[in-house]
This record gives sequence, C-alpha cells and structure tokens, in this order.
Amino acid sequence: MAAKLGHDFLAEILRNGDLAVDGTMGNGHDTLLLAQLVGSQGKVYAFDIQEQAIDNTRQRLVSQNLFDQRVKLIHDGHQNIKHYIEHPIRAAIYNLGYLPGGDHGVITKTETTLIALEHTLNLLSSGGRMVIVVYPGHPGGQQEKEAVEQMVSQLDSLHYKVLKMTLVNRPPSAPGVVLIEKVRE
Amino acid sequence: MAAKLGHDFLAEILRNGDLAVDGTMGNGHDTLLLAQLVGSQGKVYAFDIQEQAIDNTRQRLVSQNLFDQRVKLIHDGHQNIKHYIEHPIRAAIYNLGYLPGGDHGVITKTETTLIALEHTLNLLSSGGRMVIVVYPGHPGGQQEKEAVEQMVSQLDSLHYKVLKMTLVNRPPSAPGVVLIEKVRE
Repeated sequence: MAAKLGHDFLAEILRNGDLAVDGTMGNGHDTLLLAQLVGSQGKVYAFDIQEQAIDNTRQRLVSQNLFDQRVKLIHDGHQNIKHYIEHPIRAAIYNLGYLPGGDHGVITKTETTLIALEHTLNLLSSGGRMVIVVYPGHPGGQQEKEAVEQMVSQLDSLHYKVLKMTLVNRPPSAPGVVLIEKVRE
Repeated sequence: MAAKLGHDFLAEILRNGDLAVDGTMGNGHDTLLLAQLVGSQGKVYAFDIQEQAIDNTRQRLVSQNLFDQRVKLIHDGHQNIKHYIEHPIRAAIYNLGYLPGGDHGVITKTETTLIALEHTLNLLSSGGRMVIVVYPGHPGGQQEKEAVEQMVSQLDSLHYKVLKMTLVNRPPSAPGVVLIEKVRE
C-alpha cells in the first residue's frame, strides 16, 4: 500500500518530457515506471553499483520496448549524481537496502546514501517530488532508516514538505516510506 | 499534502452507486467530496452533533447542486452509526477535533470516537477504505491522537492494512493521518 502511494505521488506530477532519477536501479521496477511516466520525450537517469542490477534493468526495459534514448543506466554510485546531471529534475526515487535476489551483503551505506539524497534534493525543481523507501530489516538497515529520517526531519519546512508513512500494525522490520515535495517558489 | 493523499486514497476506490460515511460533517468539505465520488446513484451518510455543521454542510452541497437524495445529513453522534446503517459501506472519513469557525470547546471525545471508529470498521466492505485525521493541537487532542493510533496499531494485519502518515518537519501539533484498507477476503 505504501509503495503504491509512493508511485502515485510521482505519477501525479510527472509529464511527457520530464527528467527523473532512479537512485537505486535494483531490478529495474522503478526505472521502468519512471520511463513510462516521462514518455518518449523524457529522460530517466538510473544508478547502481552492481552489474547484475544494470543487466536486470536493461532486460526489464527491453521486454517492455522501453530501452531507448529516454533511459540512461549508469554504473556508478548515486552519491556521484552531480557528475551526471546538471539540469533540474522533476522526480526521484530511492529504494534503499540490498538488491532483491542478489548479494544481500552489498547494501546501500548510510554515508553515501545521505550524500546522494542531499544532492538529489538540490537538483529537484520547484514542485518536484522524491520518494525514499528504507528497509530496517537487514544489518545496518535500522541505522540507515534512522539517519534518513533524521536528515529529512531537519529539512526547512519553508522549502520542503516531508511526509513519513509507517505501516502501524506490522513488525518494526516493515519498510518506511518518505515522500518529499519541494515547495513552489 | 497528507489531506490530499487521504482524499486520493478514497477517490481511487469509490464508484458511482457506492455507500460512504462522513463521520464528522464539520463544514461539509468531506461530505461534498464523497457526494461527488459516489455519484447520483450512491449514498453518503454524514454525522454531526452541531446544528451549525449541518447548516454549513447543507449550504455547501446546495451551492454545488449536490443536496439531493444521495446525501443524508444526520444530526447525531457518529458513535450511533449502527442505528442508521446496516449495509456494508465502501469508504469512510473522520476528521476529528473541533468545528473550524465554530465553538472550539465542542470537540470529539476519545471515548465516543473509538466506539464510532470500531463500528465503522466493522461496516467497511472487503476492499473498503477509511481515512482518519487527528489533530493533537487542542486540549484533549493529543490524548485522542494517541488513543486512535493505539487502537489502529492493534488491528489484525490479516484483516486490515493500516498506514500512518506524519509530517516530519513540522511542529508536533501538525495533524496526523491514518489510512486503513480492509483486506479482500
């Protein structure tokens, strides 16, 4: 339910021709969604440090006839986003943790996650939106979740609306979802 | 942003001909929204204990040409919902606290609120949804918020998906929003 709300949150504002970022390519589910939403005139920059993620994402896009000029799959850490994108972006999604079906020992790290999120927030256009999904269930996950929630709770409310979604009748290992909207200036 | 997400959450499932409940009529904003969503074949039952709320809601509906057979404005407490509705309902919304622009001394009371919410959850059809907005800023509000969150956190996850939305870079007096979906059997 939370994941669906996160997708709807981005779908509501993304238009044909927009620029979007998938900070954690993983198996390409979010990259595919963004590629559909930005349309043939748009652009999606997707990041991952694992070859397997790039391969899986490319296959997923190919299977939907969406592996074309609109998608750029970048084999690099999301903390380097500034090296690849200079223009304002309309939307971004980060699905933290490990690659489902991959090596669970390779996880996003709090330090680089926070750098990536900060740079991505700076790139967001006025009215742009970001979704962050954090998983506290794996080693280091709880610490990352707390660090992310701490960071977003300190964002200036004049510039960012920040909403945290929590599944309340679930074990504490359930993912948390944060929705952020950059306030229109 | 949270209020908008709550409305979208109900709009997504409500169809022409559906039955919906506004547990707290207030100035009629939610009653009007529900009346639009259930269409001319649907029915909205709206509750309030204050004459002023009924009057304001009626005026709002009249101004939109929606004060017709689809809307039933009930001058009674929402804890008595079972006296008025026997059929399963598709959606419900509760906007707790006081009547904006009215007497701030007249507030929803935790005890009757919990009774009303429990009865309303029981009336929800499979796949039906409920939104609860709680305001901790007025006297008694914080206690009501905690009691509601405590109650929904104990709902059986086999039967209910429960999601809490919190504005994280706002003062603690910001409203909290709870989204509930009854799981399809």
